[in-house]
Amino acid sequence: MSDALNVLPNERRKRFDGPGEPSSVGYVYPRKIRLADEKNPLPLECGKEIRPVDVEYEVYGELNENKDNAILILHALSGDAHAAGWYHDAEKLGRPWLAKRPGWWDNMIGPGKAFDTKKYCVICSNILGGCYGTTGPSSIDPATGRPYGLRFPVVTVGDWVRLQERLISSLGIQRLVSVAGGSLGGQQALEWALAYPDRVDSAIIIASTAWLSDQGLAFNAVARKAITSDPCFLDGDYYESAGPEQGLAVARMLGHITYLSEISMQRKFGRRFCNGNGPGFQLEADFEVEGYLRHQAKSFVERFDANSYLYITKAADYFDASAWGGGDLDKACQRIKSRILLVSFSSDWLYLPEHMKKLALALGRNRKHVSYANIQSTYGHDAFLLEVDKLTLLVRNFLEGGGQTGE
Amino acid sequence: MSDALNVLPNERRKRFDGPGEPSSVGYVYPRKIRLADEKNPLPLECGKEIRPVDVEYEVYGELNENKDNAILILHALSGDAHAAGWYHDAEKLGRPWLAKRPGWWDNMIGPGKAFDTKKYCVICSNILGGCYGTTGPSSIDPATGRPYGLRFPVVTVGDWVRLQERLISSLGIQRLVSVAGGSLGGQQALEWALAYPDRVDSAIIIASTAWLSDQGLAFNAVARKAITSDPCFLDGDYYESAGPEQGLAVARMLGHITYLSEISMQRKFGRRFCNGNGPGFQLEADFEVEGYLRHQAKSFVERFDANSYLYITKAADYFDASAWGGGDLDKACQRIKSRILLVSFSSDWLYLPEHMKKLALALGRNRKHVSYANIQSTYGHDAFLLEVDKLTLLVRNFLEGGGQTGE
Repeated sequence: MSDALNVLPNERRKRFDGPGEPSSVGYVYPRKIRLADEKNPLPLECGKEIRPVDVEYEVYGELNENKDNAILILHALSGDAHAAGWYHDAEKLGRPWLAKRPGWWDNMIGPGKAFDTKKYCVICSNILGGCYGTTGPSSIDPATGRPYGLRFPVVTVGDWVRLQERLISSLGIQRLVSVAGGSLGGQQALEWALAYPDRVDSAIIIASTAWLSDQGLAFNAVARKAITSDPCFLDGDYYESAGPEQGLAVARMLGHITYLSEISMQRKFGRRFCNGNGPGFQLEADFEVEGYLRHQAKSFVERFDANSYLYITKAADYFDASAWGGGDLDKACQRIKSRILLVSFSSDWLYLPEHMKKLALALGRNRKHVSYANIQSTYGHDAFLLEVDKLTLLVRNFLEGGGQTGE
Repeated sequence: MSDALNVLPNERRKRFDGPGEPSSVGYVYPRKIRLADEKNPLPLECGKEIRPVDVEYEVYGELNENKDNAILILHALSGDAHAAGWYHDAEKLGRPWLAKRPGWWDNMIGPGKAFDTKKYCVICSNILGGCYGTTGPSSIDPATGRPYGLRFPVVTVGDWVRLQERLISSLGIQRLVSVAGGSLGGQQALEWALAYPDRVDSAIIIASTAWLSDQGLAFNAVARKAITSDPCFLDGDYYESAGPEQGLAVARMLGHITYLSEISMQRKFGRRFCNGNGPGFQLEADFEVEGYLRHQAKSFVERFDANSYLYITKAADYFDASAWGGGDLDKACQRIKSRILLVSFSSDWLYLPEHMKKLALALGRNRKHVSYANIQSTYGHDAFLLEVDKLTLLVRNFLEGGGQTGE
């Protein structure tokens, strides 16, 4: 997901609820738990295992006595466990960029919001291989005493979900009311419904598909090529130096383009020049859109680990829901017992509505309880962070047991 | 344009006419002419001037006595003057990659083809700032005795066309039957119709628009960022070293994605793995599409100059047909006296059909003779190199005086 805060500052900012407001979950803090150790390593899809594994997660709302009111939120590529609320001292947590903004889905999570924390206990954890508190390539490899770097095993969406299951179980939760996410987060929600059909009442899958398109694979390939061909990449062992900042910047600029739509870019930039005047006849950035992308990339490079970018995009590439049916999506869908809400966005060209529709049809053919909505939106893929009113309506109805299908 | 030869080898190869076949222009050779010198420098839009300027061009078919049967073909980003026919000794010309393939629009130019060399004298020249024989950043700067590098002035589509006008005049041609090109070549054709309304009977503008979209600007920005942030770029003075090969490779991989459509990629790659089996759980290229892009990039790096990539994409960025009307496309269109054929492709998402339609409507509102066709194609932007049958029909009809508008 892009840094939607900066993408559409006006639209987004007005939705911000300050930490003291009744619709905000207020101040929150990240928690940490060890979910794999020497005695109980986490087996991975690649055949290796990993230990120890620490997981960072956050909780909003109260878990009830029966522990049956929990919803698990899954984050996308550049997200983290901080899905809602505010940090008291983001500086001390080592995340100064979070000082003046709430969690990434704060407009969806809170008292009275789509994921209503007066009713539900909402949990979000950082994915394995990430760089925000959960074990990843920047963590210390116990075998060497140095950061893993590329010695970190290749992880998959399946691995992420198996680790999330450990988290949920460790909290004493047997069944989840729902698993929900957008983009790569939506694919985790789908994986949950496939891997643990008896543990989830419902899954909310937004701006997502049963597998990444070839075009998506191609964009990820370019992003990784940009990172790994940066001489500062040092085969992933850059933790004592500056790291592949230029390569990661290129990857992020490219990612940003895929999160927006041509129409949203046109509205935002309209081929305007940085200086407000005419062409500067220079090789330097001259159009607003170019300056914007460079600025976005700069702030991303300060907060994200390039190795995590490699591992997470690889997981995105490898995800294929049809694998649960031996390559047959219909057969895979037969496993599912949860109610499913699918939401796509008309201008999303990274996770295409027509691919989402294929998933809806596969579920429908197998007589699963599926609701599908294709929201008309100009925001592109980022719509899952921005179309709050429409999403709130759909999610609330769905969680309350209703459902609707349509375009 | 992408290296369409490799994009869809089967579709393309069967269209190849060997040098001895009656529909081939046969063996051809590049010509060279000096069109700007100390006494007669070329003034540029940026306010500077340049000299000397040598231009490489090719000619297919015979110029008639009245010199009124010439058609000028304009090439796209990575193209060259070698639009048709075969080189006898590509190695000797320093272009070994052209040993086993004809010019880039050979399927459109030749005896009996869309641009029929039995009737027309077809001319194509390499653009200013390029790296295939016409003066560019890799040429020697007379001021220093070393390659220009980034001391080369920023050039525009307008500059290219003014230089082409010198070429045409030097050949004694007063009026062109047509100017024709796809992509950035189409924008040159449009610029011709705007800049020299009395010199062109008609313009054939394919897979092109009146200006590049914001998304297009953004992709070019990423490509340039990849090149200039490669440490081997050396501020453009890399001609005595390896040069920014990694950065140029990233740029080319990215470009390739934009030339194809998601559906064409899906048909070609279908998420298949390189090894033909399942996932390798590796960070290396594992999907066919990734291996393909890397291979394409590798061959491109061997044949293209990174500085030219910077200058040509900048020219693409700056092109804006509405500038001829002070920012008003309708007003700009009033200048035009030529008959115009516009052709877009339904799956082209780099030069969007709806943007082409806007140009068609602007021309129509100004009662210009415009024919517009939006060809249903799955090939994306590259369709201008591949949809030969449909293009041939449209171009031939148009050149013979007919025209048709539709979608």
